Amino acid sequence: MRTDEEYRKRLYSYKPNIFMKGERINRDHAQFEPAVNLIGESYRLALDPEYQDLFTATSHLTGKKVNRFNYPPRSVDDLLKKQEATLLLSSRVGGCAMRCGGVDTLSGLSVLTKEVDETFKTEYHPRFLKYLQYMQDNDLFTSIHLTDPKGDRSVKAHEQVDRDMYLRIVEKKRDGIVVNGAKLFGGSMLVDEITVAPTRAMTDKDGDYAVSFSVPADQEGVTIFCKPVAAPTRKHLKAPIANYGIGAENITVFDKVFVPWDHVWLCGEWQQAGRAAFLVSLFHRSSYTGCKPAMIDMFVGAVALVAEYNRLEKAPHIREKLADMSATRELIHAAGIAGASKAKPSSSGTYVPDPIYINAGRYHAGVSLYHEFETLADVAGGQGINLPTEEDFLHPEVGHYLQKYVKRNPKVPVEDVWRLFRLVDDMLYSEQAGWYKAAGLHGGGSPIMERITILANYDLEAKKKIIKRLAGIR
Amino acid sequence: MRTDEEYRKRLYSYKPNIFMKGERINRDHAQFEPAVNLIGESYRLALDPEYQDLFTATSHLTGKKVNRFNYPPRSVDDLLKKQEATLLLSSRVGGCAMRCGGVDTLSGLSVLTKEVDETFKTEYHPRFLKYLQYMQDNDLFTSIHLTDPKGDRSVKAHEQVDRDMYLRIVEKKRDGIVVNGAKLFGGSMLVDEITVAPTRAMTDKDGDYAVSFSVPADQEGVTIFCKPVAAPTRKHLKAPIANYGIGAENITVFDKVFVPWDHVWLCGEWQQAGRAAFLVSLFHRSSYTGCKPAMIDMFVGAVALVAEYNRLEKAPHIREKLADMSATRELIHAAGIAGASKAKPSSSGTYVPDPIYINAGRYHAGVSLYHEFETLADVAGGQGINLPTEEDFLHPEVGHYLQKYVKRNPKVPVEDVWRLFRLVDDMLYSEQAGWYKAAGLHGGGSPIMERITILANYDLEAKKKIIKRLAGIR
Amino acid sequence: MRTDEEYRKRLYSYKPNIFMKGERINRDHAQFEPAVNLIGESYRLALDPEYQDLFTATSHLTGKKVNRFNYPPRSVDDLLKKQEATLLLSSRVGGCAMRCGGVDTLSGLSVLTKEVDETFKTEYHPRFLKYLQYMQDNDLFTSIHLTDPKGDRSVKAHEQVDRDMYLRIVEKKRDGIVVNGAKLFGGSMLVDEITVAPTRAMTDKDGDYAVSFSVPADQEGVTIFCKPVAAPTRKHLKAPIANYGIGAENITVFDKVFVPWDHVWLCGEWQQAGRAAFLVSLFHRSSYTGCKPAMIDMFVGAVALVAEYNRLEKAPHIREKLADMSATRELIHAAGIAGASKAKPSSSGTYVPDPIYINAGRYHAGVSLYHEFETLADVAGGQGINLPTEEDFLHPEVGHYLQKYVKRNPKVPVEDVWRLFRLVDDMLYSEQAGWYKAAGLHGGGSPIMERITILANYDLEAKKKIIKRLAGIR
Amino acid sequence: MRTDEEYRKRLYSYKPNIFMKGERINRDHAQFEPAVNLIGESYRLALDPEYQDLFTATSHLTGKKVNRFNYPPRSVDDLLKKQEATLLLSSRVGGCAMRCGGVDTLSGLSVLTKEVDETFKTEYHPRFLKYLQYMQDNDLFTSIHLTDPKGDRSVKAHEQVDRDMYLRIVEKKRDGIVVNGAKLFGGSMLVDEITVAPTRAMTDKDGDYAVSFSVPADQEGVTIFCKPVAAPTRKHLKAPIANYGIGAENITVFDKVFVPWDHVWLCGEWQQAGRAAFLVSLFHRSSYTGCKPAMIDMFVGAVALVAEYNRLEKAPHIREKLADMSATRELIHAAGIAGASKAKPSSSGTYVPDPIYINAGRYHAGVSLYHEFETLADVAGGQGINLPTEEDFLHPEVGHYLQKYVKRNPKVPVEDVWRLFRLVDDMLYSEQAGWYKAAGLHGGGSPIMERITILANYDLEAKKKIIKRLAGIR
Repeated sequence: MRTDEEYRKRLYSYKPNIFMKGERINRDHAQFEPAVNLIGESYRLALDPEYQDLFTATSHLTGKKVNRFNYPPRSVDDLLKKQEATLLLSSRVGGCAMRCGGVDTLSGLSVLTKEVDETFKTEYHPRFLKYLQYMQDNDLFTSIHLTDPKGDRSVKAHEQVDRDMYLRIVEKKRDGIVVNGAKLFGGSMLVDEITVAPTRAMTDKDGDYAVSFSVPADQEGVTIFCKPVAAPTRKHLKAPIANYGIGAENITVFDKVFVPWDHVWLCGEWQQAGRAAFLVSLFHRSSYTGCKPAMIDMFVGAVALVAEYNRLEKAPHIREKLADMSATRELIHAAGIAGASKAKPSSSGTYVPDPIYINAGRYHAGVSLYHEFETLADVAGGQGINLPTEEDFLHPEVGHYLQKYVKRNPKVPVEDVWRLFRLVDDMLYSEQAGWYKAAGLHGGGSPIMERITILANYDLEAKKKIIKRLAGIR
Repeated sequence: MRTDEEYRKRLYSYKPNIFMKGERINRDHAQFEPAVNLIGESYRLALDPEYQDLFTATSHLTGKKVNRFNYPPRSVDDLLKKQEATLLLSSRVGGCAMRCGGVDTLSGLSVLTKEVDETFKTEYHPRFLKYLQYMQDNDLFTSIHLTDPKGDRSVKAHEQVDRDMYLRIVEKKRDGIVVNGAKLFGGSMLVDEITVAPTRAMTDKDGDYAVSFSVPADQEGVTIFCKPVAAPTRKHLKAPIANYGIGAENITVFDKVFVPWDHVWLCGEWQQAGRAAFLVSLFHRSSYTGCKPAMIDMFVGAVALVAEYNRLEKAPHIREKLADMSATRELIHAAGIAGASKAKPSSSGTYVPDPIYINAGRYHAGVSLYHEFETLADVAGGQGINLPTEEDFLHPEVGHYLQKYVKRNPKVPVEDVWRLFRLVDDMLYSEQAGWYKAAGLHGGGSPIMERITILANYDLEAKKKIIKRLAGIR
Repeated sequence: MRTDEEYRKRLYSYKPNIFMKGERINRDHAQFEPAVNLIGESYRLALDPEYQDLFTATSHLTGKKVNRFNYPPRSVDDLLKKQEATLLLSSRVGGCAMRCGGVDTLSGLSVLTKEVDETFKTEYHPRFLKYLQYMQDNDLFTSIHLTDPKGDRSVKAHEQVDRDMYLRIVEKKRDGIVVNGAKLFGGSMLVDEITVAPTRAMTDKDGDYAVSFSVPADQEGVTIFCKPVAAPTRKHLKAPIANYGIGAENITVFDKVFVPWDHVWLCGEWQQAGRAAFLVSLFHRSSYTGCKPAMIDMFVGAVALVAEYNRLEKAPHIREKLADMSATRELIHAAGIAGASKAKPSSSGTYVPDPIYINAGRYHAGVSLYHEFETLADVAGGQGINLPTEEDFLHPEVGHYLQKYVKRNPKVPVEDVWRLFRLVDDMLYSEQAGWYKAAGLHGGGSPIMERITILANYDLEAKKKIIKRLAGIR
Repeated sequence: MRTDEEYRKRLYSYKPNIFMKGERINRDHAQFEPAVNLIGESYRLALDPEYQDLFTATSHLTGKKVNRFNYPPRSVDDLLKKQEATLLLSSRVGGCAMRCGGVDTLSGLSVLTKEVDETFKTEYHPRFLKYLQYMQDNDLFTSIHLTDPKGDRSVKAHEQVDRDMYLRIVEKKRDGIVVNGAKLFGGSMLVDEITVAPTRAMTDKDGDYAVSFSVPADQEGVTIFCKPVAAPTRKHLKAPIANYGIGAENITVFDKVFVPWDHVWLCGEWQQAGRAAFLVSLFHRSSYTGCKPAMIDMFVGAVALVAEYNRLEKAPHIREKLADMSATRELIHAAGIAGASKAKPSSSGTYVPDPIYINAGRYHAGVSLYHEFETLADVAGGQGINLPTEEDFLHPEVGHYLQKYVKRNPKVPVEDVWRLFRLVDDMLYSEQAGWYKAAGLHGGGSPIMERITILANYDLEAKKKIIKRLAGIR
């Protein structure tokens, strides 16, 4: 398994196929550093003896110890451990760990390729297992690339005026395929490998859009456009929270990108495009039953500490808010546990969590999100939004004014008060906080997607039957 | 194990210590029949070969098969089965099964008596086990009697002007104790045995209020006052829903009631009164992760069927509501599964579910309750509330008008439409529906109680520590 | 103007065209008494010198003093006074006053008939004014009859398999029209006159459904089917709340009912059917800005008094709930004031309130409704639902037990506690409370109807223009 | 009246008593420019003939035309016009207009000084009127400086360990007073004059904290500490929204600041400190019934336009969201209209809006705020958060990729799509959006403050009386 440094070294060696603010840049650009730190943390923990049990697993392909984020779960226990590993990693970095997408995509494809082979007598699965072993052996990082630009939302893929609005096969060659299109999100500037899967079900006329594959992040024809997301920084009053961050969002464009056959996971089997999207999303949504509790822990902790610093920790309305957020946290966590407990093995041996519990958990996380921001904002009051800069706070001549007026509970050092409210400001009002509001709502699928998934997998007829029996309707 | 008939026969033989609307009445009063049917169903299912696995268990005391509702759970699997048995029973009777309270109380006391013995060198537990065996062998029914009248809510038990506002020991005798007070709720007119436990933590001055015991339902000095709750009835268009019901709520008064020592489970150990309330409530709240999903199933089924009969089953706002209620249902269910999965054995061998998950589940059920009623009311529109009486609907001369105008989807027989909307009316607007709104909110503890329990058991310091580390606060 | 007694005398003289529970009954049936008392109150107040200003107005037709509930508003001040009169009347009877529907219907038709005459050169308006004068002179009561059964909700009126699913003209004769169909709700058993209007917009193929008229309540061919709604009653501990009630809901069937031309207000002008529904609904929804504040006052008062009797009146969570409900109350009231302030005169001289404010107010009332019930239920706890019957409470032998255990704050007489919680039980859990949950949600139009009306009258393009300008989009 | 340029010229001439990021800066610092533009707009509109009626008024002191934002309202119509002027100005600048605070503070003090004079035989009011005339004649800008640091929230002003935690009088001299303390917020770097008032009610021991006055913004001893708030900027694809912004938040420190008597508005009359806070807050909250509708218009417009560009404008869930936000908008607006309609003249002649309606309106705005952000975020999906930078979008070599994939509805130019989603990103996820989430929740008082104010002014006894009468309680 790789060290953090090995991950960085390889990453920084990739070709500079990235643009940001009009310039072509390398992956060692300062803007990406907090995000590289995030991924680095996942490598560090896997090598830390204390976290072996959670962050590594034994490959069923090689018997070797591998990073859990390259290991499709093969038991209920594996699913529970992935949930806990995700929770712990998120808690360490104070937010999105950005690492789960890879294992979620690999898990989904491990199931999919086997099922497609069974139905279509194809040979995706053995090739996929080879690729999986390659990823495990080299301890590489891939993430989730699912979302297409989608253009006109009122028509299907093949009906778009510009046919590339969903990523598609433009040519099938003897040695591989050529694809065009774009995928949104996925932390493309951080990965070794880009893995693509369809974003939704396709019809028989959308065959070219039923495509899944993996390519190196700097493959010819791949261009990554980054939109910077300012991470909270600190010059003097440094803090762990300021080491990590998202750094940038991105759009990844594929312009006649060639993919050799041994890295293709779906190619035209439109009947399975929806299944692909379902599986990858399901595994990814299950990750939210880990990271969202970690994030709510931060809101609970911040509310509790703000209240303590303001000496309001016993106020009933504070207690009510703490309990309310905690209940949300535990329900999401419980959904992950129930989803794992009721998981079923697929034909590939990968365990698939129960989709109803997982989607209910992710849904609850999505619809509760804004309430958590609102709760902390409510309790913190105007504090945070007007907290002076660290330079003013420490200013040799006038800093004493601020050290006087930022003070709360006389027993808490004023620097701690400043530190807390700076963190609150970072969590609530910074540009990165904005990113969290988008990612927390839509990541893995917006609430409307979970509603659709729940109903698509729900036995409504059984519920109607209960009513009919009770009402005496034959 | 008893048959339904044996249960009734014994019940009807008890002394008439019940008052309703100014009259002393017997337990075979028509008002109680739908409720007796509820309990009867729990006896029938236990004898039904199809339901053996869920509704019976093997006594660890005698090795004999006993009703699960008299069997404190001794494994994670037992807890999961109790959840499913409760769910299924509620689904069968179309609402509250009224049977879970007994096993919840016995489970809590099985843990409590052992713990008290360990601390105080008392001998409650061996006596309790004998009583438990008596209950199992005779297949008797007890329920939950926890809530005291509480009088002035701003003062403690011993500070009340009338010292009986919490049930208390008024005399300790050589052969037993004498108690005064009252307990609210508990379906007293349906039980063989009344089992009492403290409703909250007590102080050293409240020692007389730390009391728990069991007595026969018609014990000398016990008087039960019933407030009738009209159950939906049918003369002509009969339906299962109309066989079951709550029948009545009640207050049970204890006036110098004698309890022999071998039926006393706590007597003055005020340090453990809170633990008693906590344990009985915890087991009872875990039952809500079974019954509440069953009840939401009814709302989901009713909304789906109303939409179908109105030919609106594909309307997006209907789909959204169905998914939303389903998500709530599954989160509550998941909380039960997680609570069972993380259960721990107590010193008595009884498994105690995780209090955080259970309380989060019960809390979610409580705060979602009114939304479910609102959702069905919203979808059903004014239909139901003005549905004609069955006598008018079937009237030989004018009934044809109603058979014409009650009609919806031309393919659905009008009688089925009538049946559905009568059920909707029963579920939403009847006196019994009113009872469900009270019981669903407060039964097992109001949302505010779960909030308190969650925080009392929550490691807030750990959450603050996360924030301190991230903020760089030492 | 009539006395209460004169209203009753005439009402009781109508032909018994009412069925309930299989029997043909008269209007003096005991089931209707609480509802007749409601209407009677509106007659009493109009004669009470103290309430002249609110409950009467000066007819613009005759210059005579008439009941405000027969007087279409002719100024902003008239609209404000109708709001206050409705509020006060609702407050007096502790709920729905059932009287506003008449003036709302007459107001809407006063505008409509003039507009139709202007467009179609018809002569509805002068005939309508004559009818209005007849209503005013004889001080008669009509109400709102808008809602059709609607059958299959997925098709239009003329596409229904049974063409009578919307009320329609079946024959046009020289001296009048003949109609078939049914109308839901409207308190038909209480009115002197039934006034019918279309429930929605119609297409050119639905011309027969564009019909509006008035007929006496016992007109040949009219049959009223009542579904009883049990009103809270008291034998010994009487209270004003128990004098009033809804009594029954109903469906009114029209079987070849003849309407003379001088009582027809719309006949085939399908282009104006939607306008008719809009106008009558608008006036009726404006009444909700009067009655809903009165009803929330009851919830606020009940929560405050329960808290006081429990000695929890200073608890922060109680204060929060009181403020929250009060804010809702005042916003609904404010919407009525703003709707009146921005009212515009129609060509008939009747003032039409601003539809956006009115619909926003009614919408807010609808979506807040269940929260009010939940709030009182939350604060009242289990109290109320198990409150003993008055016969037991006053029982000479055992009543003392209840007089002991119902007690709360030692300074509040126990009878007052009983009275309060009986009222709470009536408000929350009785069959009549069920009716309020239906009527409060759907009366005047369900929330979805107000959303539709708001958008239909909203200048969305203006809002888009703001965004375009700010974004620099041409 | 001044021109925009005259405002700037004078502003830029003030002494540089401002610190930001460790440096002493002038008021013409680039960071403040978008905010100066905001205030400038209020000067421009007052000189624009089209807006005379809304943005100017005739001084009752001089009979001259003055800017409405320096004119305490003297009629219902004045209050309605201030509401509309605030709405229009906010709409023009796409957010907080920052100008209303001044008139709100002056309005409150105009009432207060007269009342204090009446009670204490002081002479604040005539001096205040002179000051008001000075402000009007010179067309100066002051804002709202109310909030103290407050230190330990569990104790009163005089109980603080550091006695300066609330701004206080440290010395009374013959020619004026000397004050110490700090005030949070208030846009101090933009004003000509800083006007201070107490933030809450005081006790007899807090007399030194009952102080109100005005001083020039660069008065000796005043230091302003700014926390920058990054405004959305544009290099190439410029847009009005990018001209305006908040620029910075601030803390203003008063270190032995001298105030001459003729600029002191309260000095030790602790009985009136709460009244001062109430009045200034009330007028300021009334301004929110103008600016909040303007802001919701932006959310409504953005949702409608996003839906249109995605071709989803007819989707029912979009329509529901639009109607729901519109209803909120209109209720807040209605609360302002009702508050103005029921306003009462104070002894000073200034009209005081009804506190219940105003607080209910501000409360509704506060508790709805996060929902509006959530709604737009929900509808916009991941779009916006990953929108490429303008430099990449316009890049001569690779920009074509983005111009291809940002496209939606084929008929909408891709630049317009980019412009819309950049605005959405600015509104939702930028640092300035963060500021709006704080200001929208807490500005003028957090929801908890409005709840407190509502109850403090509410006649709860009248509501209890209604319940007592209905329940038959004497």
